[in-house]
Amino acid sequence: MRKIFQQELEEIGDDLHQLGLLVSTAVNKAAQSLKSADLDLAQQVIVGDREIDELEEKIESAGITMLALQQPVATDLRVVVAALRMSATLERMGDLARHVAFAARGAYPNHVASGALFETLSAMADSASSLVSKLVRLMEDHDLDLVAEISNEDNELDALLRDVFDLLIRQQVDANRQQVVDAVLLSRFLERLGDHSFSAAKRVAYLVTGDLDASALIDDPELSMD
Amino acid sequence: MRKIFQQELEEIGDDLHQLGLLVSTAVNKAAQSLKSADLDLAQQVIVGDREIDELEEKIESAGITMLALQQPVATDLRVVVAALRMSATLERMGDLARHVAFAARGAYPNHVASGALFETLSAMADSASSLVSKLVRLMEDHDLDLVAEISNEDNELDALLRDVFDLLIRQQVDANRQQVVDAVLLSRFLERLGDHSFSAAKRVAYLVTGDLDASALIDDPELSMD
Repeated sequence: MRKIFQQELEEIGDDLHQLGLLVSTAVNKAAQSLKSADLDLAQQVIVGDREIDELEEKIESAGITMLALQQPVATDLRVVVAALRMSATLERMGDLARHVAFAARGAYPNHVASGALFETLSAMADSASSLVSKLVRLMEDHDLDLVAEISNEDNELDALLRDVFDLLIRQQVDANRQQVVDAVLLSRFLERLGDHSFSAAKRVAYLVTGDLDASALIDDPELSMD
Repeated sequence: MRKIFQQELEEIGDDLHQLGLLVSTAVNKAAQSLKSADLDLAQQVIVGDREIDELEEKIESAGITMLALQQPVATDLRVVVAALRMSATLERMGDLARHVAFAARGAYPNHVASGALFETLSAMADSASSLVSKLVRLMEDHDLDLVAEISNEDNELDALLRDVFDLLIRQQVDANRQQVVDAVLLSRFLERLGDHSFSAAKRVAYLVTGDLDASALIDDPELSMD
């Protein structure tokens, strides 16, 4: 019984890593599609989201079945509960990547915006992409220095979001209605990708250190637009 | 042991209901603050969110402790896992209510918009408020007819979101940049409140019927802006 349990736990870990890779690829492609007005990449992200959803459902089912049948305690329970949370977070990040790709596809063959607005959105897309890559590296290497890096980069992403709003409202940059709407939505999607990355990173840190900062296990990422 | 367990399970149920009431009040006040440009109501929502966060953390801790110490199986396990999910969803809805209140406060003493744009946002606010009230009634009465009502009203809310975008982009209604930004964000926050209400309603239905439509337990609410 015990041996089967460890095997299943490892399988969940492998699936979670695979989910991280899929989401990282999706965010990276979505960022590229936004920056290059690349319709093909946008399509890949939109179509690929199904695979992410299916893998998430597989992890959730496996986790809930383990809770029910194996009754893990202590560390094992912590791992299963955290895996369920991370899986849900990663799935949501996949949705956000898809939404970024939708905006890129909607604007095609044009870019979603121009000038400083486009530059800032592109910087946000790069930052979101980098954050998710770091999250996957953290899942692989358990290098906890990455948590601080992710936290800092998430703060930079929040600052870029404020830049977008400043450009739109205070500086009144030239942009038509569709571009304004897209910029608001995109900046929000990308900023949420940062929040989720940091939230998932805290959960990995919690699993690695066992440090009972309950927020890692419990808190949903806060919106940082207050 | 068994008796203590049942007692703890009931306590989680009571807390979850209390959380639903708090969130329903928050969404209702946020909707009112938006419609009436009422600064005092907006402040109440913003300040009150801490109470929602604290109650959610209490439920999460209790649920995880139960999973660890009591090792519930079958129905009980299902209840605990679903309670953890619902609690996280309700907390997120509280955040969204707070964000609506922020927008109302930011525009004060003016309304966030005017004309058809304001009317449509107000209709969305009413709808979100009604949805959360129905969710709480569902939690209280287990009247499953409410699930279909919530589903229909959530669809109406999605249609109103499309109306907002149509007003902004196709009809080019008169609105300044701040108003456009606020309208995009608000319509998104309110639409998400609808998604979360329906998601939580499905979870309640799952608990009541035991019907293993896994989506009720597993799926996060999908964004409906595709």
